[in-house]
Amino acid sequence: MASIFTKIINREIPAQIVAEDDNYIAFLDIMPLVKGHVLVVPKREVDYIFNLEPEELAGLHMFAQKVAKAMDKTIKCTRIGVAVIGLEVPHVHVHLVPLRTMDDINFTRPKLKLSPEELAEVADKIRAGF
Amino acid sequence: MASIFTKIINREIPAQIVAEDDNYIAFLDIMPLVKGHVLVVPKREVDYIFNLEPEELAGLHMFAQKVAKAMDKTIKCTRIGVAVIGLEVPHVHVHLVPLRTMDDINFTRPKLKLSPEELAEVADKIRAGF
Repeated sequence: MASIFTKIINREIPAQIVAEDDNYIAFLDIMPLVKGHVLVVPKREVDYIFNLEPEELAGLHMFAQKVAKAMDKTIKCTRIGVAVIGLEVPHVHVHLVPLRTMDDINFTRPKLKLSPEELAEVADKIRAGF
Repeated sequence: MASIFTKIINREIPAQIVAEDDNYIAFLDIMPLVKGHVLVVPKREVDYIFNLEPEELAGLHMFAQKVAKAMDKTIKCTRIGVAVIGLEVPHVHVHLVPLRTMDDINFTRPKLKLSPEELAEVADKIRAGF
């Protein structure tokens, strides 16, 4: 069965997509740790990041870098943190999290609940950073 | 002033180095979240990961992939998690953390205190995974 991220890639379920190319996509996490939390995903559905081909892994991170630069320009934070955990959705995803403190990237704390309007507003901001 | 990681690269302070090439180095975190917690560092001293050149960022992650594969073979865990935070030491470092639960990669919790012998033992294990 297609992962939830593949369904986003195929436009079967909606998401606030902020960047996309032939191989990678970036969209807002709908359960963000902080405002502006983005997921960067390879379109090829692979469970574990270290099972990507080296070139594919390199491409993923270079794509994530472009997204992070757009986030840095548009989201108030000290810097963009990176995390790859992968204990939940079995499709590689790199978390890009605007950081001010270490706790901003603590995945054990409760997630924010943002309205569709708030998510749309954050996504528009990030898109404007490219 | 040289960062603590540059001092490790230059062998001015000791570390349990598990892998090294011309551009990157990997060694054990001496304040690990869990046993087998490794830092992967570019030899060029740059503060913020997204200020690396894209090719340098790509190389860093491909090097980290080799280290993670060695860790996967030798450290008991579900998978290797990745985090880049960078609010403390101003020299890029990718955390590779053997994960079983989400809390294993929670940087707000107390770090382990391992003896030099325990660190040496873990490093030997990982080195054997290459």
